Amino acid sequence: MNLTRGTIAWQLLSELDVREEDLYVNKTQLNAFYQTDLQSLLIQRQGDELEICGAQTEYCVDTTIKMAHGFGYRLEMVPGASSTVDNKFLTLRQTIQYFEEIWEQNFLKFISPDLQSKCNIIN
Amino acid sequence: MNLTRGTIAWQLLSELDVREEDLYVNKTQLNAFYQTDLQSLLIQRQGDELEICGAQTEYCVDTTIKMAHGFGYRLEMVPGASSTVDNKFLTLRQTIQYFEEIWEQNFLKFISPDLQSKCNIIN
Repeated sequence: MNLTRGTIAWQLLSELDVREEDLYVNKTQLNAFYQTDLQSLLIQRQGDELEICGAQTEYCVDTTIKMAHGFGYRLEMVPGASSTVDNKFLTLRQTIQYFEEIWEQNFLKFISPDLQSKCNIIN
Repeated sequence: MNLTRGTIAWQLLSELDVREEDLYVNKTQLNAFYQTDLQSLLIQRQGDELEICGAQTEYCVDTTIKMAHGFGYRLEMVPGASSTVDNKFLTLRQTIQYFEEIWEQNFLKFISPDLQSKCNIIN
């Protein structure tokens, strides 16, 4: 997918509940911490607990989860809160199940959609 | 696999070419940088280029690659230099191919086995 800055694909989905106080980080690599100010924004706001969601499961979401865990953040996620597409090895559903099992065993805690975390990272 | 420190599974494989000057990091999480002194060892030795190999492909190797890339290291790998086992979605070979494609597109450069990097990380 072409996610060049300024293109239509770069825009936020209209279904998102956008708030005045939301912060945005423009990233250029799968890892949302890579050459961005995400880490300093989180330190400023003393966020140590992150709720993760976004796309794509096996690319940006997986990489950002592993980096955030490595930085010491406690991570939470609503099951199914990442999305992807079929690939030559796995269907969309298999990909999500495969990665969610790795994440749950090693990196994050799955939570009910009713719970609210301090910081949400939409990848 | 039970990799408790001090057990037989914790020992180095006898096939490894062990050298006097080798350094070891005892890790407790998939990520070789997580709560270990790997980052400070690399800074001391001014290693900015890492060659990656090890097991398992989709666990320790994948996580350490993503973390090392996020820290700014240049990464190299010999194709096929990670290992794993079949899982319920993918065979061993499919797993390695799937992850190597993600790595090559985003995190590292594949090299010929004859090339020597400055630092090798065996995961």
